[in-house]
Amino acid sequence: MELGMIGLGKMGANMAERLLQGGQKVTGFDPSADARKALEAQGGASADSLQALVKALPTPRVLWLMVPSGKITDDTVSGLLALLDKGDTMVDGGNSNYKDSLGHAAACAGKGINYIDCGTSGGVWGLKEGYSMMIGGDEQAVEALRPIFATLAPGKDQGWGRVGPAGSGHYTKMIHNGIEYGMMQAYAEGFSILKHKVDFGLDLHQIGEIWRYGSVVRSWLLDLTTDALSKNPNMDGIAPYVVDSGEGRWTVDAALELNVSAPVITLSLMERFRSRDDDSFADKLLSSMRNEFGGHAIKKE
Amino acid sequence: MELGMIGLGKMGANMAERLLQGGQKVTGFDPSADARKALEAQGGASADSLQALVKALPTPRVLWLMVPSGKITDDTVSGLLALLDKGDTMVDGGNSNYKDSLGHAAACAGKGINYIDCGTSGGVWGLKEGYSMMIGGDEQAVEALRPIFATLAPGKDQGWGRVGPAGSGHYTKMIHNGIEYGMMQAYAEGFSILKHKVDFGLDLHQIGEIWRYGSVVRSWLLDLTTDALSKNPNMDGIAPYVVDSGEGRWTVDAALELNVSAPVITLSLMERFRSRDDDSFADKLLSSMRNEFGGHAIKKE
Repeated sequence: MELGMIGLGKMGANMAERLLQGGQKVTGFDPSADARKALEAQGGASADSLQALVKALPTPRVLWLMVPSGKITDDTVSGLLALLDKGDTMVDGGNSNYKDSLGHAAACAGKGINYIDCGTSGGVWGLKEGYSMMIGGDEQAVEALRPIFATLAPGKDQGWGRVGPAGSGHYTKMIHNGIEYGMMQAYAEGFSILKHKVDFGLDLHQIGEIWRYGSVVRSWLLDLTTDALSKNPNMDGIAPYVVDSGEGRWTVDAALELNVSAPVITLSLMERFRSRDDDSFADKLLSSMRNEFGGHAIKKE
Repeated sequence: MELGMIGLGKMGANMAERLLQGGQKVTGFDPSADARKALEAQGGASADSLQALVKALPTPRVLWLMVPSGKITDDTVSGLLALLDKGDTMVDGGNSNYKDSLGHAAACAGKGINYIDCGTSGGVWGLKEGYSMMIGGDEQAVEALRPIFATLAPGKDQGWGRVGPAGSGHYTKMIHNGIEYGMMQAYAEGFSILKHKVDFGLDLHQIGEIWRYGSVVRSWLLDLTTDALSKNPNMDGIAPYVVDSGEGRWTVDAALELNVSAPVITLSLMERFRSRDDDSFADKLLSSMRNEFGGHAIKKE
């Protein structure tokens, strides 16, 4: 099958490579000439504009967007809407907010273009291990792309599926990431307690290795955590500053919208906020309050 | 190698079976005659008292305790202390509080008996997949039992190790369980949001299956969760009541002792408490407060 890949960054380039390795045809577009050259070196074709890409593809066309969510995805969808024909298919494989995806789906529907939102997990390991894909959109449109999904996935019938109508793919991926926040935080706290229990002289990397086999907490995240601990057991040179890229806060939004309690996922997000606040006003105020009512000493800066 | 297994409940019986399958010799003691018969049927020997068990074993003896933590473990350790000789080894493979284990280790040391605390993970799946074992105690004493650990573990050199001195094995297992609480809560909250998003008509079992392959949240706990969702997608007949068996609260104690922040693990424990409180005084009081200051209606019982 043939597909146009828009965005040849870390994720898009790896997915294009996996598709090529799996016998699919890929023509890629990226503003970077280097990224386009890299794809050609792997046996793909390239185009230097959206227009050229759309022209290069056989109809009905399949375009896969692997670009940053928000404005860039919005602009790319708008650009494609002006170029595509009825019956073509657009897949947003990025981390778009599902509400954006609902809007994109509606705009596509108005022109008879199939819109598919594909929540994609697996990160840089996906090239080798395959991607987990949560897919939203019209059933027939998804089915038509089966060779693509089956090639990108870890197994032909494993790790991918249509979970519901347009929007549901990105919704499911959002929740996936929310769960990820909570799992990461739980591991981080547990290893932190072990680290502080200095009288036992524990080797965190060794403990992670033990847990990887047969334990209840074994997971892929633990594999990665253990690998990180083997390379840098004391986390030297790494600032205690944790970024978030949106899906965690969208998960909290989703919980609020549905009046569903999700305290641990929410707190995991808040802990990231806290990690970025090395001059906490709340902590200063707490210290002041203790002084006010109890005369407790304030630690000065 | 030959070992005396004390406690032939779910865990002890399975571990004895795995040892027998791996070519080790096991003599078991349990108050239940049925449990003893079951072990004999698998090729083990049995004894109907601690005394008889100790007498039946070659010296230096190896006794493995797989009994409930707290009083029963305490009593068993005391009983053995009166029966064992210098050079014998006692392994507590249960979920003892590491502070109890430190006490047991000291009592054993006073009589020249080796004490080993072995945090054991893997539950009912351990028989087939092997047990993850976090071991505390004297280095030579642990090394002497290598054939036992190598047989119980998922692989000869996988999933087990001496993590430090006596107490450190159960300490590490405690933290393992604390992490487990956080992971479980994160999955539960995520699936709950998906469940409440009724307009997408999501199939939670299908989503779990997709996540099992290639996703960042893949784990053994997810495998089990997905299996549970396949058998009972709506959790019919299951009360929203979550028990805890101690290790979670000990992890929170450990965080408090070390002044280490572990908010998500702590909150996961609190969520279990909340699940068991279907007549929350705090919620009633909150509802009353809203009425006091804002005249908001109180929902009556």
